[in-house]
Amino acid sequence: MLPALTDLAQFRDLLGAAPGPDAAARAGAEERNGQLTKPPGALGRLEDLAIWYAGWRGDARPRIEAPQVIVFAGNHGVTAQGVSAFPAEVTVQMVMNFEHGGAAINQLARAAGARMDVHALELDRPTQDFTQAPAMTGDELLAALQCGWAAVDPAADLLVVGEMGIGNTTPAAAIAHALFGGAAGDWTGRGTGVDDAGLANKTRVVAEGVALHTSRDGLEVLRCLGGREIAAMAGAIAAARQLRIPVILDGFICTAAAAALAAVAANALDHTVAGHQSAEGAHAVLLAKLGKAPLLSLGLRLGEGSGGALAINILKSAVACHSGMATFAEAGVSDG
Amino acid sequence: MLPALTDLAQFRDLLGAAPGPDAAARAGAEERNGQLTKPPGALGRLEDLAIWYAGWRGDARPRIEAPQVIVFAGNHGVTAQGVSAFPAEVTVQMVMNFEHGGAAINQLARAAGARMDVHALELDRPTQDFTQAPAMTGDELLAALQCGWAAVDPAADLLVVGEMGIGNTTPAAAIAHALFGGAAGDWTGRGTGVDDAGLANKTRVVAEGVALHTSRDGLEVLRCLGGREIAAMAGAIAAARQLRIPVILDGFICTAAAAALAAVAANALDHTVAGHQSAEGAHAVLLAKLGKAPLLSLGLRLGEGSGGALAINILKSAVACHSGMATFAEAGVSDG
Repeated sequence: MLPALTDLAQFRDLLGAAPGPDAAARAGAEERNGQLTKPPGALGRLEDLAIWYAGWRGDARPRIEAPQVIVFAGNHGVTAQGVSAFPAEVTVQMVMNFEHGGAAINQLARAAGARMDVHALELDRPTQDFTQAPAMTGDELLAALQCGWAAVDPAADLLVVGEMGIGNTTPAAAIAHALFGGAAGDWTGRGTGVDDAGLANKTRVVAEGVALHTSRDGLEVLRCLGGREIAAMAGAIAAARQLRIPVILDGFICTAAAAALAAVAANALDHTVAGHQSAEGAHAVLLAKLGKAPLLSLGLRLGEGSGGALAINILKSAVACHSGMATFAEAGVSDG
Repeated sequence: MLPALTDLAQFRDLLGAAPGPDAAARAGAEERNGQLTKPPGALGRLEDLAIWYAGWRGDARPRIEAPQVIVFAGNHGVTAQGVSAFPAEVTVQMVMNFEHGGAAINQLARAAGARMDVHALELDRPTQDFTQAPAMTGDELLAALQCGWAAVDPAADLLVVGEMGIGNTTPAAAIAHALFGGAAGDWTGRGTGVDDAGLANKTRVVAEGVALHTSRDGLEVLRCLGGREIAAMAGAIAAARQLRIPVILDGFICTAAAAALAAVAANALDHTVAGHQSAEGAHAVLLAKLGKAPLLSLGLRLGEGSGGALAINILKSAVACHSGMATFAEAGVSDG
């Protein structure tokens, strides 16, 4: 277990001094990849994924045996502005659904052979409406980061973080707008399904929040415009880096959380890969801003970590090929 | 087990009279999908896949428990024209590699929880060089179709067919060119890695073959320009239809085999989905001609069924969500 976070300055320092991949393991994986019984490059992106994974795990011939999916839940004061098609009570109802195994993410985690944990963050105490005040105090942000930080199993060898929080595409859009500029409408989408009037209202809310909170520092953006489950995802992604556990990013909200880390330390997401491109409109743009090419693009827009979990088997398959295939010499195959 | 094929006319008749999906099971799956604890449409293409699968299996709440991967291998007389970067002896070497578990497809089938079978079709008797003569006689085509037809396990609930055959992107390109027109260069790619001169030579070979063999009937195209492993894939895809086993298509060569069936009966591929888009240039165009949108696009160009096998877990995940999730009523979640 990592030592608990003590304050935001320490968290910032940890992001700046995060460990990198193991160059020797990466080089060993590249060498092995060139000897496997296939034409060079014929496994496409699976080859890159396996080499990347090997570097982060410090093992030229790794296995993926203990993926972890963590779903964080939070409630948002900004729902008072009417930004969601669903009532806020659905957050706690869905947490119960996660705990009883009935949600999409339960099925997807099981299909990926992943352990799944759920952390509900003070659901009866929503964040502040960010059109009126910062969403969180510094202490509240630290507590949320720490929840995610402590939630990562040090024995996990792959991490997916997801979220549940009615209204949370609105803070995600606000974070993206604050960090990357443009117009509020560039980052605001229909979420779980608001209509045209709802979309216009949501865009207004995002614009007002970003105008009110003027700092563009990653942690300040997270504090003023984010939410507890969003900060917890950021904390978990940062903890995974300290533990050299590769992370598969999920959709728009997860990627917004990750973007806040990248705003603090440019290389903070080097241990992450984009699991999928969400149907939530701005996700593709946000991924492009972070230089992340999604593994899947199947029109998902559910959250919960669903797209990230769906991609676990892609990464598992990549690593299984890399570590399980015979070399040309072992198989007695002519290499062209 | 299906009765053996008796002649090509019978095979043609079976394609024309193939069974369709179960409308009641499909309707039941659509109704169930609308009640699951997620916003409408939030699982994107996974929802369509599950409903499609339910229809073909005749079960509104199906499971995928017995996927089968079959790899067919054949040799090609057209390799005498210097169309491949690898020597023809690699076909039999790779069959040994499949049998010893060392190839990419072995790892991918295992990662997908699939049974894997390998059928080598008369490797010491290559097809004729199609620039000189039809690749196969009618009896040879029938035998190859029958090999695939009999290879499908009636107890399988999902099928992937793949191939190994040095030089076989050339017959695949010739089939596509014969069936869909355009120029030979539109359908000819680098395969496992020929250089510019090799590509020009390969394009010439494809053009010569298609000019020599003028029938555009699907089975005649398969006979004159195809190969044994290509015909076997077609036979297996057709058998799966009779058995109502959904099929995930693999890359360019598998899709060319499938296209020959579609040329005989327009709806012959309704029980198939495109597993991936290969990096082999013409695959995307061929899929578009068949109206198939690929599930994955990760730059694979290996064959063996690799892209199809990689997509098994996507379909499994889709069906797991559909059949495993709680409804709004079951979970006590407000549905907006």
